[in-house]
Parts: sequence; structure tokens; C-alpha cells
Amino acid sequence: MSFINDNFMLQTETARRLYHEHASKMPIIDYHCHLVPQQIAENIQFRDITQLWLVDGHYGDHYKWRAMRANGVSEDYLTGGCKTPWETFEKWAETVPYTMRNPLYHWTHLELSRVFGIDKLLCPATAREIFDECNAKLATDPFRGQALIRRFNVEVVCTTDDPADDLRYHKMIAAKPFGTRVIPAWRPDKAMAIENPEAYKAYLGQLGAAAGKEIDSYADLIEALKIRHDFFAANGCKLSDHGLETFYAADYKEIEIEIIFKKVLMGIAPGPRELDKFRSAFLHDMAVMDAEAGWAQQFHVGAIRNNNSKMFKAIGPDTGYDAIHDLPTAAAGHKFFDRLAAEDRLAKTILYCLNPKDNEVMMTMAYTFNDGTFPGKMQFGSGWWFLDQEDGMRKQMNALSTLGLFSRFVGMLTDSRSFISYPRHEYFRRILCDVIGADVENGKLPASELDFIGQMVEDICYNNARNYFNF
Amino acid sequence: MSFINDNFMLQTETARRLYHEHASKMPIIDYHCHLVPQQIAENIQFRDITQLWLVDGHYGDHYKWRAMRANGVSEDYLTGGCKTPWETFEKWAETVPYTMRNPLYHWTHLELSRVFGIDKLLCPATAREIFDECNAKLATDPFRGQALIRRFNVEVVCTTDDPADDLRYHKMIAAKPFGTRVIPAWRPDKAMAIENPEAYKAYLGQLGAAAGKEIDSYADLIEALKIRHDFFAANGCKLSDHGLETFYAADYKEIEIEIIFKKVLMGIAPGPRELDKFRSAFLHDMAVMDAEAGWAQQFHVGAIRNNNSKMFKAIGPDTGYDAIHDLPTAAAGHKFFDRLAAEDRLAKTILYCLNPKDNEVMMTMAYTFNDGTFPGKMQFGSGWWFLDQEDGMRKQMNALSTLGLFSRFVGMLTDSRSFISYPRHEYFRRILCDVIGADVENGKLPASELDFIGQMVEDICYNNARNYFNF
Amino acid sequence: MSFINDNFMLQTETARRLYHEHASKMPIIDYHCHLVPQQIAENIQFRDITQLWLVDGHYGDHYKWRAMRANGVSEDYLTGGCKTPWETFEKWAETVPYTMRNPLYHWTHLELSRVFGIDKLLCPATAREIFDECNAKLATDPFRGQALIRRFNVEVVCTTDDPADDLRYHKMIAAKPFGTRVIPAWRPDKAMAIENPEAYKAYLGQLGAAAGKEIDSYADLIEALKIRHDFFAANGCKLSDHGLETFYAADYKEIEIEIIFKKVLMGIAPGPRELDKFRSAFLHDMAVMDAEAGWAQQFHVGAIRNNNSKMFKAIGPDTGYDAIHDLPTAAAGHKFFDRLAAEDRLAKTILYCLNPKDNEVMMTMAYTFNDGTFPGKMQFGSGWWFLDQEDGMRKQMNALSTLGLFSRFVGMLTDSRSFISYPRHEYFRRILCDVIGADVENGKLPASELDFIGQMVEDICYNNARNYFNF
Repeated sequence: MSFINDNFMLQTETARRLYHEHASKMPIIDYHCHLVPQQIAENIQFRDITQLWLVDGHYGDHYKWRAMRANGVSEDYLTGGCKTPWETFEKWAETVPYTMRNPLYHWTHLELSRVFGIDKLLCPATAREIFDECNAKLATDPFRGQALIRRFNVEVVCTTDDPADDLRYHKMIAAKPFGTRVIPAWRPDKAMAIENPEAYKAYLGQLGAAAGKEIDSYADLIEALKIRHDFFAANGCKLSDHGLETFYAADYKEIEIEIIFKKVLMGIAPGPRELDKFRSAFLHDMAVMDAEAGWAQQFHVGAIRNNNSKMFKAIGPDTGYDAIHDLPTAAAGHKFFDRLAAEDRLAKTILYCLNPKDNEVMMTMAYTFNDGTFPGKMQFGSGWWFLDQEDGMRKQMNALSTLGLFSRFVGMLTDSRSFISYPRHEYFRRILCDVIGADVENGKLPASELDFIGQMVEDICYNNARNYFNF
Repeated sequence: MSFINDNFMLQTETARRLYHEHASKMPIIDYHCHLVPQQIAENIQFRDITQLWLVDGHYGDHYKWRAMRANGVSEDYLTGGCKTPWETFEKWAETVPYTMRNPLYHWTHLELSRVFGIDKLLCPATAREIFDECNAKLATDPFRGQALIRRFNVEVVCTTDDPADDLRYHKMIAAKPFGTRVIPAWRPDKAMAIENPEAYKAYLGQLGAAAGKEIDSYADLIEALKIRHDFFAANGCKLSDHGLETFYAADYKEIEIEIIFKKVLMGIAPGPRELDKFRSAFLHDMAVMDAEAGWAQQFHVGAIRNNNSKMFKAIGPDTGYDAIHDLPTAAAGHKFFDRLAAEDRLAKTILYCLNPKDNEVMMTMAYTFNDGTFPGKMQFGSGWWFLDQEDGMRKQMNALSTLGLFSRFVGMLTDSRSFISYPRHEYFRRILCDVIGADVENGKLPASELDFIGQMVEDICYNNARNYFNF
Repeated sequence: MSFINDNFMLQTETARRLYHEHASKMPIIDYHCHLVPQQIAENIQFRDITQLWLVDGHYGDHYKWRAMRANGVSEDYLTGGCKTPWETFEKWAETVPYTMRNPLYHWTHLELSRVFGIDKLLCPATAREIFDECNAKLATDPFRGQALIRRFNVEVVCTTDDPADDLRYHKMIAAKPFGTRVIPAWRPDKAMAIENPEAYKAYLGQLGAAAGKEIDSYADLIEALKIRHDFFAANGCKLSDHGLETFYAADYKEIEIEIIFKKVLMGIAPGPRELDKFRSAFLHDMAVMDAEAGWAQQFHVGAIRNNNSKMFKAIGPDTGYDAIHDLPTAAAGHKFFDRLAAEDRLAKTILYCLNPKDNEVMMTMAYTFNDGTFPGKMQFGSGWWFLDQEDGMRKQMNALSTLGLFSRFVGMLTDSRSFISYPRHEYFRRILCDVIGADVENGKLPASELDFIGQMVEDICYNNARNYFNF
């Protein structure tokens, strides 16, 4: 029996039934990912499995890079640019057996199985064969970008886009649909990043150009963003996202924010208190915009980024040198949402945390602001990044269940820039069914209610997200 | 087989044996709850299941409210006061299936089964029938307040009382005993709440009146509290309780505390440092009082409260808008107890934490101050509030076990204001037996010692609390 | 069947196979412990089991002391010095049954079984018999210090030594080898402890004498330490260790550190910022020394120590009054290692955390600094002190696995000053095999790869440490 078999991750009979009769049939709504719109629009054909899996120009899979560096693989094979695709792939094949118990071991074999139909385990002995077979397939039409997405029954993909983005590729895709809707999502992180005045001013130039408006003040900034927000909405966007170290909810006066903004325009880096105030104002104003537009908002909280400055200088961000932060979130988070609730401007909200110690804090924070207007309005989102693995998912599911309504969970998203990471939905669904199946077989959920429970599984896999986002 | 059956939550044969032969037979000492003494004294007859379960005047079950709000139920049905008992109940019945995996799902069906003898699952299809059956029973004598408590073999109930309380209802109950002793417990939170000077001054009026002493200084305050402490002791009290965000152990001089107190009397709200000093002094002085009286003291640490100011203004505290805090506790907590230990004035102490990440910190903190004078003197208390559920209990039990003496644990309490939450003791005991039973069957505890283990189960269920509090 | 049997802790057939065919055969490298070199060199003969297990002059097993104090045993029996060995042992025997679910229960019976061949459970009924049997055996040669170590197939022991130590006992051992290499490890905690100027100045006297150099400045301090570092290296040392509350990485100028140092020499206690700067400088300079010498460095982070000042005054440090701290570690930790990485002076590093909430933070922190130069260069160390128990180990193993390469883990160490704590390696290995065995039997690891998996078990037990430290 092959490793990735029908009952992979499904320990009980009920789990198997829930998965095969309910979860596996549902389409995917991938409401947060980092797929590159241009690659979708141009229906990318991958040169080889190394480009698809490991290194793609300046980018690549930083999960795998971290694992390979930890396994003693030199940077030459990763971002060095001096090795052949085969040499890099071979190093990955050497590393794979050493990733046992890491999600990469499961992801790798799920992807080989589900995308390429390869049930062999990747290791040095199988590396060449698998490399050749994957590459041969990648040269064919059914392995181009759009077909790869279609293969997984993905109804909707939300990309992650800067407010200055012209969305030209989204328009291209919309003009020539391929079966999966590709919708932009609003991620204004750069518009908040005043800590580096020079880079920020350059960004304001782009944003101003996109909005057709010069940005000389904070009020201008918000106005320009509102123009872009409307533009995104006109292009189907219904969802924002923020990447934060923690929440910010300092008291401030508008004039203070304007002064901080002016100083940044003059090239003066803000101090910690100024940063806190500015972020507090900015995030509030963004949240108001989302509420007024009827969008949902997402907060990805808890990363500490670019911690290896030597490598940051050499190869830039998102290259595998980020980690889990441990800032407090409760006080500022509650204050932030309280203000929005008091103003009746709290949009549907999904909180994601990166530090598992925060699961219960962020879960109870979210649920403190449900107001009875929509089932599951305030969401505690699925295990994210480092927590997108079995242990992280189980902890998230348990925190959500014991402190709230698991049944109303909007479920999984890939948060990935890979065209073949959709098996992570399968992985999530198998774990979901295993969690619930065990409860049924242990008598913690009533076996008599399997119809309702099957429906709950389908809801978490698909229906809840469909109703929540209403794309 | 009904959902809540004999072996509910008991996965192993040993667990079943421990539960049925040991745990289930033991009486209950509910050493911390929020039952309303007047309702006990007057032997309340509930109008209907909605009053008992959902909405009772200004109060109600905020666990259920949170779940219903999250399920999209409008406030009209909860605190709105504009719906009939049936309408509110119906909304709860609609919500119940959506609470699967939340403790409410288990609590609800345990209560239906154990109190009302109803083994049906609550859902829209069964709602009317269950509503009517419960209401019919509630109209009879065996369903009045005192009988509901008696039904669960509760020997002692400790309520939670303000120092200004005249304890008239405790006296009434004592004068006309009904089989369960109802003892006051000392909770001086309001006497520490200087952050709101106006409310605080009003409170000092009540406290002064109760103590027969005008309160013009901090020394007066402590003196008045000592008068009330003695009064509580004379009425059987042996236990105090504090609800805290974290511990406080700032250095201070008495004169500083007097000045802060005077400022508050003048209507000036204290700053953060003043608050910290005042709380440090107040809690120390309260702890000294407890030690001198031979009481036990409890600290419930880690809630962040009243986070939804709009709803707080509308319907007040304890209405489902609290959450789990994430302040550090180790440094101040150790300093606080160290001072008491150094002065030989450390009472028996129970620490409860609301954030599961603090389990190990608060557990090792407690055990750092055991002094060999009483087995289990320093206790790490049972999973509290948000953590009063299977996952929370297992984590508390494991932290306590691996870092201390599980065998000396004083066990479960309801912390509830409901007359029918006593099945939570059953729930706790089933989980307790399941935890230990699994260890025996996995060979982690010796099967040869089942007699001792059975005794340990009985101790945790009842004997330890009886010996610890000596009511 | 006796309690500690062949399959103790091994729940699956695969776990048993992995343990018996792989783990159990491997030698032990105990790369961090607190064995007293003099006791090894002099091949200590223990007076009785009380000396070996409970009280040895001013020292003793603070794990057991904590448990006994919590069980109501008076200090007289522990550090009081007024009870006979039998009286103290009897109290421990009374306590043992009450430690069920605590690691002491397992450790105690593992040690009785593996060292003394006693399979009885320790309790009051068996106490005298076990006391006598242990004592009789301890009077024989096979139970002297060196033989006790040899019994467990220990290849290398690293002790924990102060830079001022003359390593005379290490030299004695080296001159008269007994089969286990005993190597010093560098622990310069006292050289950083400026918070108490008088004690610090006294220490500088010792250190200066050892180095043959007067220490009048911070530069002198570092120079003296370098002399000792070289001396340690010449005596086989390849490993340093630091015990920290958290990481320190404040910005500082050398002149500031010199001024702080001078003030301390003048008897002025440093303030919090000065402490932070000094520690930041000191730890950086130590890390540079380790990198230049090609050593590995260890950081034991997260204890809050000496919290019971009354008992600290009475009986000193390491007597059971320490606990788990909850300071943040992410920001300073990353900054600390980033600087070393940027300077290309980052040694092999093992991070241990004492608060399980930090597992994921410290694990991702470590892995952010892998550079591809050595497989597993940056390590997340095994569950430490309070976390050296099944729950702690499983959490550490899962954090390491899901966020990194479990296969590259350098595995277990005793961190103990006891000659008979080596069964903790057995305990670790059984849990290790149980964790992996369950994964195989649940289909999460491929059963076809048992050869690789068996190799991985052997690597974690022994080979990884051998290759990592290269003693």
C-alpha cells in the first residue's frame, strides 16, 4: 500500500466516511494566497520541477530552503544561482528523508501523488527518475498554471495585492476565464511601512501615481487609498489583509499623525511611540474603509521578519529568515476592535496567529466582538505559515472548538505562492475529519447525528467560506 | 445507546472502573461558585427553563450568549428583553447543534439528562417538547433551588461575597438548613477598584456602613475590612478570592498608599504606577488578613474584561465580552508570595490561570512556596472559565501532574451561578478518571496499585478539598 | 509483569522494535550534566541511598525536595540535618506513591530497577527492605561512582565548570581513565553576575588568580576569560553553557561597558539598563570566543531563580525554589544571533527553553540561523529541568519536528548531578521510539522506510551528538 493512500491521516472509520463522503467532494475557495497574478494570466509553463518547487528566479519555497540549510546544504544550491536545476533538485531529494515528521515530508509526497501521479518516495535513489518524470509532464499542457489550479476544483483564488497594483493581470484573467475566478485582495502593508522613510516615499510615489493624486499629507494618503480601495472593489475585491507583529491601538490625535507623516516625508525615521500611533491610526482607517465597503478583513499577526540581516542584504525578504514572535496581543487587540465596534464599523474579521501560545487569546478576542449580525462574523483563522501543519491545525481547531463555534469556521486557505500547494486543502480536510471522527468514535459527539456532522464538515470545507465572503 | 451514557468520556476499562467505583460515589464540595445566596435562601422556583438557562432579569449565561451571538442571534433574544421565553429558548435550540465540540454541547445534554431525565438531543425538532417538559418539571417542588443542589450530593457551597454584604441570606439558610451548607467567601475586588474614583467612593460608603466605621484613609479601609473579615469568619467563611489581570508586587511605602488613597477620595484617578502600588499593598494586606485568620486564599488570574465598551454601557459587566489576557505573571507573582513567605504569613493558596500558556508558570510558582506544613498547601487550581472544558482540564491536570503532586489536588469547583451546573463535577470526574485510566492501561501507572489509585481519585474528587478547607 | 518492563512507555509494536533493535543499543553521550568532577575522580562510594538520592551534605535532589515539601514533609527531613538517613528515606518512601504522574515516580522506579535490580514499588511497606538492599549494594565496588556511570554505557560526560576552576579533577580522571571520558564544559555565569558587586569582586579575584592576571577593566575580564578558555580547550573542552532569564541584545559602546564595570568594581550595583548592556556585551564576547575556538554553545533560557528569599538565606541556591519564567525572548534572541551571523562568528548553538510556551519561538529562532555549513548546526535542545518529562519531551519533539529537522536532533542529556540519573536517557529513548512508532503505525511515516527510521533513531540517540560535538 502506498504511503499517501486513501485513508492517509484518517485513523477511524468515521473519519474515513466523513472524508470520502463529504470533505473530498467539496470545491475549494482559496481565499488567501500569494499566487502571482501574472503567472496565472500568462498560464505559466514551468521549465522544470526545480522552478516549480525550489527556485524560481529571485523567489522560491522558503520552507524548503530552511530545511535544506538546516540539513547542511550550501546557499549555492538555493539562491546562489550557480547550480543546475538537477543539482538543486538532487540536494532536495537528499534532504527529503531527513524531513520526516515535518509537514514538508507530507506535502512533498502529496504533491508528487496528486499532481504527478507519482507514488514513489523521493530520496537520492529515486531523485533522477522523479526529476525526469516531473519535467516531462511539466512540458505538457495539463501541467500549465491554469490547469494545475483547475485540477483541484478551485472555484475562487484570492491573490494578495498592493493598493498601487494596476490589477492588469486580474483583468486579463477576467477577460479570458479558465474556470477558476481570480480575485484581488487588498494588502496595504507598504502604505503603513513608515519605519524606512526613503523606501516609503518611493512607495508613495507609486501609490499616488496609481490613484492619480499627489500624497503630501496623511489625509492625502487615506484619500488615495480610498480611490484604490474603490478600484479594487470594482475589480471584485472583497477582502483585505494585514501582516502585523502585533495589534496597535495607541491613543492619538489626527494632527499628531499628520506631523509624523510630514516628518517621514522629510526623511526622519519615526520613534517607537510615533510608529505605534501611526500604525494605530492607519489600521483603524483601513478597517473603517473595509467596513464601509462591506469587505472582510484579515489580520496575520505574530511574525518577526528579516532576522538574518546578512542574508536580508544578500537576497531580500521572504527567503526563510523569519520566525515566530512573542509580543503580547490582548490589550491592544481588544482596544482596536472595541473602537470599531463602538463606532459600528467593525467588518467581518479573521484573526490568524503565528504563535500557538496566542491561540486562546486571539480566539477569545475575536469572539468578544460577535454581534449577532452574521453567523461566524468574527473568525479565528486556520493555522498559518509555521502553524500550517498537523500539530498547529489541531491546536487551532481545538482552541476554536472549545472557545467558540467550530461549525462556523471558514476553514482552510493555502497562503502559498505555489501552483501545486492545493493538496494542503486535502491535508487540512483529512485532519479535520480525523479530529471529528475521533470525537464521534469516542462518544464525544453523538453518532446519531452523522448527517449534521457530515454537513458541518462540508460547511467548514466550503459552504461557510462561500457564504462568508460571498465572492 | 443514548449520547450521555454510563461510559461517557471514559475510553478505557480502568477509567470506567475508577469512575463508577470511586469518583461517582463521592459528595461534592463546591468551594467556589457564584450562586446567589438570596435565590438559595428563598428556595427559588424557576419560571421556566429560559430563566434557569438563558436569561434571568439582568443576568444570564454569558457562555450561551457568546455562542448565540457567534451563531448570528440578535441581542433582542438575549438581553433585549423583547422576546418571549420560548422565542429565546428556540434560538438556543437552533444554536445547540452548532456548538458541537464546545463544552456547551456537553453541558447542555448533561444537564438535560441529569436534571430533567431527558436524553433527547436539543435541536429545533426537539425544542418545543423539551421546553414544555422542563417547564412542567420546574413547576414542581423537586425542581426548586435547594432540591436542585441536593440532587447532586453537594455537601458545601461557597458563594462569592462582597465584604460589605450583610450575609443575611447566609444566616437565613443557616437558620433553616436544607442539607447543603452554604458558606460565604470573601471577594474584596471592589475594595481594590480605585481606578474609578466615583464608583469607588460610593463603594466605600457601603463598606463603611457595613463596618460601622468611616473610611477616610487607607488605614481606615484596612481596619474596616478587618471588621468585615472577622464578621465573615464568624459566619463560617474560610476562604477568600481575588479576580486579577495579573499579580502586583511593586515596592511601596505606606505613606505613598495613603496619598494615592487620598487622591482617589478627591476624585483623582490614579496613574498606572499608582494603581500598581495600591494593588500591591492592598493584596498584601488582604493576604496577611487571610493568613492570620487561617483561611485559604484564591487568585483567579488572567481575564481581560469589559472589552466591548458599547455593550458594557448597554448591559454592564459579565455579559460575555471578556476574554483571555496575556500579561506576564512570573516576576510579580513570585515577588508577591516571597514577601508573604518571608514574613511567615502565607496562607494556603490556590492559583487559577485563564491563559493555558501560563499553566506551567503558575504551577511552578505555586509549588515554589510549599513549606512542608500541609500536604498540598500551595495549589494550582482547576481549569477556570474559558478553560473549564476538556482540553483546558487535561492541560491543567498534566501541568499539575508533571510539575507537582496530582494526588494532592483539591479538584473541581463550578465557578457558576447556575443551580444546575453541578454536572460539571461529573464531567471533571469522568475526564479525571479517563486521564488516569489511560495511564494505567498504557503501563504508565502500575495496574497493581489500583487500590491506591482509586483512593487518589476519591481524594481529588472530595477528600482533599474536605481536608484542605476544613469547613 | 513488573511495572518497569521491557515495553515500558512503548505503546506500539513499531515503537518496541525501534527501541529494542536500535535505541537501546546505542552508547550515551551525556553532553551536559552537573556531576561533580571530584566525586568522579575520587570514585565516590555512597554512604547510603539517602546520600545518593536525597541529601548529600549541602546538596541534594531538589526535584525530590519540592515533591516532599508539597507532600507536607518538614524541612527537618531535608536540609535540616537533624534526621537520620533512614528517617529521611522513610519520608521519601511515603511521598513516592503521591508522585504518581510526576516524572519522579518513573525515575525512582527506573533507577531502582536499572541500578539496583529492584522491581518492587517504593512505598512505606517496602521502604525498609529497599533501604537495606540499596545500602548493602552501595557498599560494594560495582556501586561506586565510576562503575555506576560505566553501567550505562556512557562514552562521554561533560561536566559544568566555572572558568576559574583549575580542572584538577578532570586531569586526575584523564590520568587514570575508567572507560568514560569526562570533559569540562565552560559555564561563565559568575563572570556575568555583576548585579551583586561584592560577590562579583570576590569572584574576579578567583578568576584573576586562575588566569594569572589582575582584572581591573572589562577588557581585562575578557582577556582573563580568554586565557581560561584556552586552558579549558587544552583540557578537551568543546562546549560552553549559559543560564539566562532571557536573551540580551541591547546596543552598547565599549566605553559604556567599561564604565559599568568600573562602577561595579567600586561597589555600585548596576541599574536595569546597565545590566542589560553589560550582559549583551558579555554574552556576545563569549559567543565570539566559542566561535573562534570551534566550540558549540548552549543557552539555557527561562528560569526565575531563588524566589523564596527566606529559604535562599537559609540554605542557598538550587534547593528547589526556582520556577519557570515568562519573559519574552524573540526580539532580543534574534538580534543577538543576527549580530553573530553578520560577523560570521556564530558557533554551533543549542537553545533550551524552560517555558513550553516558548518552544515554537525558540525553535524557529534557532532555525533562522542555519547557514548550510553543518547539518543541524542550530539546535533546539531537549526538554530541560521542569520540562524533562514525558509531556515536555513530546512537546519539544513535536515543535522540533514540525518546524525543523527532527532527524538532525542531538538528543538527550541528563543535566543532573546524580550518578544514577542515566535511566533518563532510557526514558527519553522510549518516548522517542513511542513518538515515531505511533507515526509509523498511523501511516504518518511510511512503514517501508523502517531502515531509515531505525537509523534516524540511532542518530538521535547517539550519532548526531557524536558528529556534532566531535569530542
